[in-house]
Amino acid sequence: MLEKMFNPDSVAVIGASRKEGKVGRAVLDNLMQNSKLKIIPINPKSDEILGLPCYHNILDVPESIKVDLAIIVVPAKLVPGSIDECGQAGVKNIIIISAGFKEAGIEGARLERECIALCEKYGIKLIGPNCLGIIDTASGLNASFAPNMAYKGNIAMMSQSGAICSVTLDWAERIGVGFSKFISLGNKAVLSENDFLQLFENDSSTAVIAAYLEGVKEGPEFIKIAERVSHSKPIVVVKSGRTAVGSKAVSSHTGTLAGSDAAYNAAFKQSGVLRADSIEEMLDYSRAFSVCPLPKGRNIAIITNAGGLGILAADACYYAGLTIASFEEKTVERLREKLPPAANFYDPVDVLGDASPDLYEYALDVVQDDANVDGILLLVSPQSTTDVPGIAEKIATTIKGSKKPILCNFAGGTRIALGEDILSKHGIPNYSSAERAVASMDALCTYYKIKNHKRGDPEEMPADREYARSFIESASKNKRRVHGLESMDILKAYDIPVVDARVAKDLHEAVEAAEDMGYPVVMKILSPDISHKSDVGGIRLNLKHADEVERAYNSMMSDVRHYMPDAIITGVQLQKMMSGGKEVIIGMDRDPQFGPLLMFGLGGTYVEFLKDVSFAVAPVTREEAKHMVSSIKTYPLIAGVRGEAASDIDSIIQTLLKVSQLVTDFPEILEFEINPLMVMPEGQGCVAMDIRFTLNLNE
Amino acid sequence: MLEKMFNPDSVAVIGASRKEGKVGRAVLDNLMQNSKLKIIPINPKSDEILGLPCYHNILDVPESIKVDLAIIVVPAKLVPGSIDECGQAGVKNIIIISAGFKEAGIEGARLERECIALCEKYGIKLIGPNCLGIIDTASGLNASFAPNMAYKGNIAMMSQSGAICSVTLDWAERIGVGFSKFISLGNKAVLSENDFLQLFENDSSTAVIAAYLEGVKEGPEFIKIAERVSHSKPIVVVKSGRTAVGSKAVSSHTGTLAGSDAAYNAAFKQSGVLRADSIEEMLDYSRAFSVCPLPKGRNIAIITNAGGLGILAADACYYAGLTIASFEEKTVERLREKLPPAANFYDPVDVLGDASPDLYEYALDVVQDDANVDGILLLVSPQSTTDVPGIAEKIATTIKGSKKPILCNFAGGTRIALGEDILSKHGIPNYSSAERAVASMDALCTYYKIKNHKRGDPEEMPADREYARSFIESASKNKRRVHGLESMDILKAYDIPVVDARVAKDLHEAVEAAEDMGYPVVMKILSPDISHKSDVGGIRLNLKHADEVERAYNSMMSDVRHYMPDAIITGVQLQKMMSGGKEVIIGMDRDPQFGPLLMFGLGGTYVEFLKDVSFAVAPVTREEAKHMVSSIKTYPLIAGVRGEAASDIDSIIQTLLKVSQLVTDFPEILEFEINPLMVMPEGQGCVAMDIRFTLNLNE
Repeated sequence: MLEKMFNPDSVAVIGASRKEGKVGRAVLDNLMQNSKLKIIPINPKSDEILGLPCYHNILDVPESIKVDLAIIVVPAKLVPGSIDECGQAGVKNIIIISAGFKEAGIEGARLERECIALCEKYGIKLIGPNCLGIIDTASGLNASFAPNMAYKGNIAMMSQSGAICSVTLDWAERIGVGFSKFISLGNKAVLSENDFLQLFENDSSTAVIAAYLEGVKEGPEFIKIAERVSHSKPIVVVKSGRTAVGSKAVSSHTGTLAGSDAAYNAAFKQSGVLRADSIEEMLDYSRAFSVCPLPKGRNIAIITNAGGLGILAADACYYAGLTIASFEEKTVERLREKLPPAANFYDPVDVLGDASPDLYEYALDVVQDDANVDGILLLVSPQSTTDVPGIAEKIATTIKGSKKPILCNFAGGTRIALGEDILSKHGIPNYSSAERAVASMDALCTYYKIKNHKRGDPEEMPADREYARSFIESASKNKRRVHGLESMDILKAYDIPVVDARVAKDLHEAVEAAEDMGYPVVMKILSPDISHKSDVGGIRLNLKHADEVERAYNSMMSDVRHYMPDAIITGVQLQKMMSGGKEVIIGMDRDPQFGPLLMFGLGGTYVEFLKDVSFAVAPVTREEAKHMVSSIKTYPLIAGVRGEAASDIDSIIQTLLKVSQLVTDFPEILEFEINPLMVMPEGQGCVAMDIRFTLNLNE
Repeated sequence: MLEKMFNPDSVAVIGASRKEGKVGRAVLDNLMQNSKLKIIPINPKSDEILGLPCYHNILDVPESIKVDLAIIVVPAKLVPGSIDECGQAGVKNIIIISAGFKEAGIEGARLERECIALCEKYGIKLIGPNCLGIIDTASGLNASFAPNMAYKGNIAMMSQSGAICSVTLDWAERIGVGFSKFISLGNKAVLSENDFLQLFENDSSTAVIAAYLEGVKEGPEFIKIAERVSHSKPIVVVKSGRTAVGSKAVSSHTGTLAGSDAAYNAAFKQSGVLRADSIEEMLDYSRAFSVCPLPKGRNIAIITNAGGLGILAADACYYAGLTIASFEEKTVERLREKLPPAANFYDPVDVLGDASPDLYEYALDVVQDDANVDGILLLVSPQSTTDVPGIAEKIATTIKGSKKPILCNFAGGTRIALGEDILSKHGIPNYSSAERAVASMDALCTYYKIKNHKRGDPEEMPADREYARSFIESASKNKRRVHGLESMDILKAYDIPVVDARVAKDLHEAVEAAEDMGYPVVMKILSPDISHKSDVGGIRLNLKHADEVERAYNSMMSDVRHYMPDAIITGVQLQKMMSGGKEVIIGMDRDPQFGPLLMFGLGGTYVEFLKDVSFAVAPVTREEAKHMVSSIKTYPLIAGVRGEAASDIDSIIQTLLKVSQLVTDFPEILEFEINPLMVMPEGQGCVAMDIRFTLNLNE
């Protein structure tokens, strides 16, 4: 797939130009860096450009020349015509560099849809529009108007922003970092991140995948593909527009609908994508992946020639959840043998300010032999007698031959640059601070776990789907979007225990129901118009006999009428009062990108003020459901603390899986919440006390 | 103060050497960079070094030459002798570069104490030992063995690690950053950060103070001085050894006793010190302070030539709590006048990839005129047609003349370097990422508030100090370290309301007391040996009549005997059962560096699992006490939510101030806790339900 896009024998440039400063010229210049490539300029006004025979139209190119790839740089309004001609000429791969499409407004969006339709008609693979182009260092193709060419390397990079491409290429040129493929995604009209993830997966020259994304095009598909790819290659993503403010900038930028950040976090976690917080971080991580073996654990050794740097690195390790390794005895002995007596032989190892390159190498050799060490941070400060380039030269060979990751922080400026250059010549990154080196070590450790983790398939939970389907159909017929208490049977269809409850249309029925169920009871208002019952006096707890039921009924009706005079009240519901349980919430919100986003949290104030909730995209696996429950900060409150009884965690997990199944089965459910789910002590299960959900009646 | 230390006319080097690679040579070389300085080498074996007349001993220097400063580089064991001779010779300023003191073990520590005593005897000011030396660019003094000299600038830097000095100087040389003074603190035997803060305060060449510290020497003094200095100059500190792991590295490094991180955070906050998380961050902030006016608010404008960069910057602003400014109408109109139609005229302003230097300058001029804008982030990506140096040149003048802070993020590498160099020539920093520029903007905003904030003095709270004093004296006489319930009267002495309670020595007295107080009551075990009463069954709640008191008494005695058979039980305490209140905790731990560290949090699980507590060093001001209460995450639970009644916050603040007074008055109190303090609804006060405190009987 896409073989001829990235390794074409012949490339046509539609809108080629000889004029300096024109994109049509820059693209030609870049393509011409590869002398083996057949380049075909297309321009209605020229017969020759830069010594190349130029055709007036792609249809004029002789049949003997098979055009593998066409790059279009003509103004937006001319693009559909060009695609049509490419289609007729049998061109199957197109890059549209021109802007003026979806990102530019309504007319642009219409043009873009026209392009998509033409690509479908002719079976054309399309990159862009509104992009910088692509680079493939393995085939030697620079099909872009980027001012810098990339060095060869094993990092594949894709970016939804052309400017971020420029930034990255410019940075890479200065630091000496190489790429396998470099793709400017543009508006992703046809080909998107999902296609390129699969391309990179099978690309032998790619070892690391880096991406700057402002959104993903097909969320569920992205999760599936990324989950698979992340087992063979690390995927590092900067997803911008994380916030309300940022998102505003996104929509004015590329017209991508930015998904909620919680959904991205959940989706990335579930699919093994490493999320970087900035372009710098993305590149830092990618460089570590590009050269380092993976650490088998989180035990880190620090080697330094300065105590201060060692402390800063140890602090950073602590915050990242990395452990300062405890050395084997023999390591300490071997260090003591050769290091000066004032040195520190324990982690962090301080070889002292005047340590020679040989001593650094010795310490590194000894420490990497230690079975308790999974990864090493090597710190160098440029003190008066420090032989910076000497150290760089000595350790470079060791680092490249090591079976453990060794990340360097040569800290400083002028004198450090000499060492940095030597490391760079050996392809070894230098991190400008201990903190950055530690963050990358953390990424290596995290990816080791991702690579070796089997997600497995979500279980199919049994359910009475017939009932649920007919419920939704009937609601659709009756145009009932919002559902509450009165629809708890949909939970029963999914085998979720619900509280024993009766509906009563009037006071008489209410008392009868209460007497029948046994006291104490809870009374709740039944109204399609009321979402927050407690705000309008629509909930009464702990009613102990008929008198109390009567008093509660009357005052509830008067309160509710007072607050919401126009609400339709269909009656009340009486529930058996539960005690001894803890309230949790299970919710779902349908994310525009990823679909059903499950939420879990403790009830009441915990959710409201501490925002102590966890998310996952449904369908979730049992392991993911477990993690949702255990990852909230207030987990100890339900897991049992100080001899307090543990809640029935298993029943929560089971309910999460059932809700996951329900909202996956029925995309018509837009929002869904069991609030509260009352969880009883271990072994005693849980019951749903109240629900609320909204249907999309247009589906 | 210290005038002749930093601007001496003559400097002696004790241990001077002509041998390359020796510290005694490096120091001479550095001093000789200043041709106006009289340099006097001291070495028992030479009569001349590098063309300078050399004396065998400082005492041999003719009286006509007044030695302002002596730099000692001889081995540690010879240092006390050298100081003694300096003292006799009338030298008042000494820098000891030599290592082998406190940081090297017991013998070194003894030597260091000897040096301190000699300095006291002769009234000598001492920097070091175990340091790199000092640099003063205003006077042209380089009294160090640092391999790099500093450029002139307005940042004063001090560092407890010599290697961090080397790192910083090396970095500064590459980036072109200047310093006013540069001080390697070493072991801080005599002069410490507190002395230099005061020096910098009055140093006209210093505008910004940066420091790397592993600890402070005199905590309370530090707070007082830093609080004053921070009103005239920003103080940016990296304090390492934040964590258990890091602290271990500290003690093996310089022997400094690292204070708890919570105490440092509190002390820095109270004294207006900006804490940086890394050396990079410290330098980033310092450079911003060194050139920028302060923003009057947190409304930030972003100007970019790339949407992607703008989004990343907006995201970073959101996380830092900075607001994306809403432009005045005239700003949008003026931008629309000259920017191309596809540009974005709202914040973030996108001038588009091909924006000329003139257009950048125009946008910058327009945006900085907007009254709703407090600071500006200027982002540049190196796209194909971007004139990077041209933009740098154009905006440099605008930036230097602006009344608002403008921070640049030219993002990239090779091509960006051309712009970076031009900015650097104008003394303007370039931040390598939007995130770093945003972090520095945040620091500017924070410091604007610090500068304009008057801390005021903590109020003197009235108290019966006589009672407290006699209580402590009697406890001291009786060797009673740990105190609980039975000592609640100490709270009364400080006018802190305590629960109505009676002590009962046996069951009979217990029932009598309960009948007398009125039900319901709470019964608590009284024992000097039991800290956690509830863990051993030592608390019974809600006893409603005599029978229940009797049953509770008997089962409590049996439980407590079971769990702690050897505990001395002096009886029980009966308290009136309180209801309708909320439990909070007020505690104090005496920090080795800063003294009494107050803690506040909600009771129970909130403190235990969420670690949701706040700290401040006592004595606290009323404003600080208020902040302690309002800054916990669960504050809404006591401030009143969803119509729930608010708790009596004022009474908590009042109690905090009283506890602050108590623990300040009596340094003998090592630990102190009111747990719980029951806070009633607004206007109804609070009562202490239980206390526990520990005395230091040696004081």
